[in-house]
Amino acid sequence: MLSHKQVEEARTRAVSFFDKAGLVLTAEEKELIEIADFGLGDLERLGLEVLVYVNTERVCAKELVMFAGQTCPEHIHATKNGVPGKEETFRCRWGKVYLYVSGVPCREPRLNGLDDYREYLHAAHEIELNPGEQYTIMPDTPHWFRAGDEGAVVSEFSTRSTDEEDIFADPRINRFTVIGK
Amino acid sequence: MLSHKQVEEARTRAVSFFDKAGLVLTAEEKELIEIADFGLGDLERLGLEVLVYVNTERVCAKELVMFAGQTCPEHIHATKNGVPGKEETFRCRWGKVYLYVSGVPCREPRLNGLDDYREYLHAAHEIELNPGEQYTIMPDTPHWFRAGDEGAVVSEFSTRSTDEEDIFADPRINRFTVIGK
Repeated sequence: MLSHKQVEEARTRAVSFFDKAGLVLTAEEKELIEIADFGLGDLERLGLEVLVYVNTERVCAKELVMFAGQTCPEHIHATKNGVPGKEETFRCRWGKVYLYVSGVPCREPRLNGLDDYREYLHAAHEIELNPGEQYTIMPDTPHWFRAGDEGAVVSEFSTRSTDEEDIFADPRINRFTVIGK
Repeated sequence: MLSHKQVEEARTRAVSFFDKAGLVLTAEEKELIEIADFGLGDLERLGLEVLVYVNTERVCAKELVMFAGQTCPEHIHATKNGVPGKEETFRCRWGKVYLYVSGVPCREPRLNGLDDYREYLHAAHEIELNPGEQYTIMPDTPHWFRAGDEGAVVSEFSTRSTDEEDIFADPRINRFTVIGK
């Protein structure tokens, strides 16, 4: 659970990242930035700040902010009843992000400080994304990602976003943030 | 027809717009910017500079540069054999763009200097997009758009892009640029 204060502080910080990246948001959008802690109340380590630009039946575009070292936990967008899962392209706009997908593992996935989550971060094929670099993740691909030392701003272009259908490796996770006092 | 020199000059100019907008491209991407004159050889008035980030079976994301006053001519993305046409969201990143769609007309569409194209610019419902503002165009909607006095950089998020299937109002148009000497 996050407090209202934590959410507000995270939102203000996220706005400062958008500013650094030179991405302009409307005043209304700034208020709509979602602070996602995946139900773990450990936002600095596992979390994501998300602004959804558009999400229709067919297309979704989001902007993601990640604070320094912040991790989005491993999940898949599963094909279900013959309907292909979400396909998503990450394009780094600012900072650096390490994306891990299933495949040939790299020697050392960046798991420092994530001991209690390590068990659920399996994918170990590393793709380093710097500004202007991008990668497309096809449906049913396990993936997680982590910001570099300065954090990151990442544009996501995808098919319809159905966060409620994401399947997370870590059973402790609830995609939806609970906000308390 | 555009000369190689014209194409190269337009590409260099487009890169300077990306720089102004703070959008980072790779060196390879800079070379891939498409200079679209719609077959009219009148790039300053009717044209578009386009970088396709991704275009799969399901999703497309592009960045558009428009020089000052440049116009993308009226067209529709038509539904065909029951397959819905392209759905696209324009998000202004830098500068200003005037988008015209079918609907209640505004008093004065910005047609100055476009006399010889006016006949094929019917849509007159104006949506002004400044940085951080966006609009979603559903399939089968006639639309055209024009940059403001400084030009514009616009992100486009859409379903699969099939430029060859766009239906233009102006019969003189050929979507694909011919490049000569």
